[in-house]
Amino acid sequence: MGRATDRRTVLRIDTAARPAARRRPDTLSAEEPLEIRVGRAGPGRRRPLAVTMRTPGDDLDLAMGFLLTEGLIGSTDDVVTAQLCAGTDTPNTYNVVDVVTADGLPEPRTDPSRNFYTTSSCGVCGKASIDAIRTRSRFAVDDDPLTVPAELLTALPDRLRAAQRAFDRTGGLHAAGLFTGDGELVVLREDVGRHNAVDKVVGWALREHRLPLRGHLLLVSGRASFELTQKAWMAGLPLLAAVSAPSTLAVDLAAEAGMTLVGFLRGTTMNVYTRPDRIIT
Amino acid sequence: MGRATDRRTVLRIDTAARPAARRRPDTLSAEEPLEIRVGRAGPGRRRPLAVTMRTPGDDLDLAMGFLLTEGLIGSTDDVVTAQLCAGTDTPNTYNVVDVVTADGLPEPRTDPSRNFYTTSSCGVCGKASIDAIRTRSRFAVDDDPLTVPAELLTALPDRLRAAQRAFDRTGGLHAAGLFTGDGELVVLREDVGRHNAVDKVVGWALREHRLPLRGHLLLVSGRASFELTQKAWMAGLPLLAAVSAPSTLAVDLAAEAGMTLVGFLRGTTMNVYTRPDRIIT
Repeated sequence: MGRATDRRTVLRIDTAARPAARRRPDTLSAEEPLEIRVGRAGPGRRRPLAVTMRTPGDDLDLAMGFLLTEGLIGSTDDVVTAQLCAGTDTPNTYNVVDVVTADGLPEPRTDPSRNFYTTSSCGVCGKASIDAIRTRSRFAVDDDPLTVPAELLTALPDRLRAAQRAFDRTGGLHAAGLFTGDGELVVLREDVGRHNAVDKVVGWALREHRLPLRGHLLLVSGRASFELTQKAWMAGLPLLAAVSAPSTLAVDLAAEAGMTLVGFLRGTTMNVYTRPDRIIT
Repeated sequence: MGRATDRRTVLRIDTAARPAARRRPDTLSAEEPLEIRVGRAGPGRRRPLAVTMRTPGDDLDLAMGFLLTEGLIGSTDDVVTAQLCAGTDTPNTYNVVDVVTADGLPEPRTDPSRNFYTTSSCGVCGKASIDAIRTRSRFAVDDDPLTVPAELLTALPDRLRAAQRAFDRTGGLHAAGLFTGDGELVVLREDVGRHNAVDKVVGWALREHRLPLRGHLLLVSGRASFELTQKAWMAGLPLLAAVSAPSTLAVDLAAEAGMTLVGFLRGTTMNVYTRPDRIIT
């Protein structure tokens, strides 16, 4: 497995300084492909389902979270084994997760409408037609009785950043933090791709038998897009908060799900786009 | 075709104000799926190749740029017609681009290793195995004689932001700006997905018969990831500059291509990761 960060020599330029240019080492976020292979037990029965460009680390959680938020598995019972193994590339980088699924589970479709290559900034990939985009959640969130004081929510971005160790080194990682309704950080994951950070959180929760994540909330460091909202719904989360803007489709999906969607959570302020009854002012 | 922005009513909360909560209208970046269908002339011959979650607008450029940066077309000669048309959904949102390709062009593969669903934050999607990720550029950039004074580069982010009208309204759009080596803004495109903003720029340049983009540079508002670097190479750009961090794989690809990669372009400073000989200090 590769490292979460790697060093390169860069030319640092400051036109206001003398000398204007200095060579120095710099720490970068690692971005490497992870291939997810899925199928039944037996030699040659797993087929490549998806490649995601991700920051190495928590790769089994990433694969599990991806399969769950894509609706391909529903619980840990659907997975017999999941192994991080070497690909065929040289040097050996352990960029393949091999997942053996249970006998009762339908084989994942590998037809053109269901294959995946996700880049470092991509969520749910591999669908050729508009009809294939939506994945239905098995968890209802509209009746989740979670309520959160607004003051508690405004404290969470600082809590998330304080827990982000890698961010300070590279400036290039997205974070997703799972919090209890009391504002306690349960788990934090970082990745060069924000959807991967969410999948790593969801995969962790799956492995810990915590799904659905009733009474919890998810905070993401960037924007709230359609695919992050969908992943939150697939995990049964009643509240998704983002530091930056949501899109129209994210708001529409949250409204459909009965999920509370908070955007621009900064300082003492936030925008509540859907289900504001869960936010106490 | 939908609009680039749309309005929703939100609950604006400021825990430091009284009253703490007010209802007000808010402008959001629109995010809608665009399905790209490709094939020969004749009824029923085009098949869905990709869906991208994008901000409506410049959809033909987006489709052309996507096909070019994916290596499926090489010039405007490869395209007979490209039409924005209605999908089967109701209401009619004109979320389909139908592209008729020239007879000599190989039919795009719709096997599992080459299908695409790209979310609003995704670049190049639909590849199931690691081998399928890389697309070879037909344009060499390592011998491009472009040189740019560092002072000129540091002025470009402000120039890009000044040209971004939609940003101020929604706070949620990524931008890609094509500049000449003299720092003149040639074209600016915005999108909820940064890869879409780049594809819209490249599609515009393709349609204007400006490829390869020798002597030009591309500035993107966010991070420099692998897929943005690859798209820049596919368009023949010798310099990619980003306001935020690059990833390891972006740096490695830029080094392989002989492209100058600049990150953290802020204030009077920048980091030059590859080919610093093009930056004059």
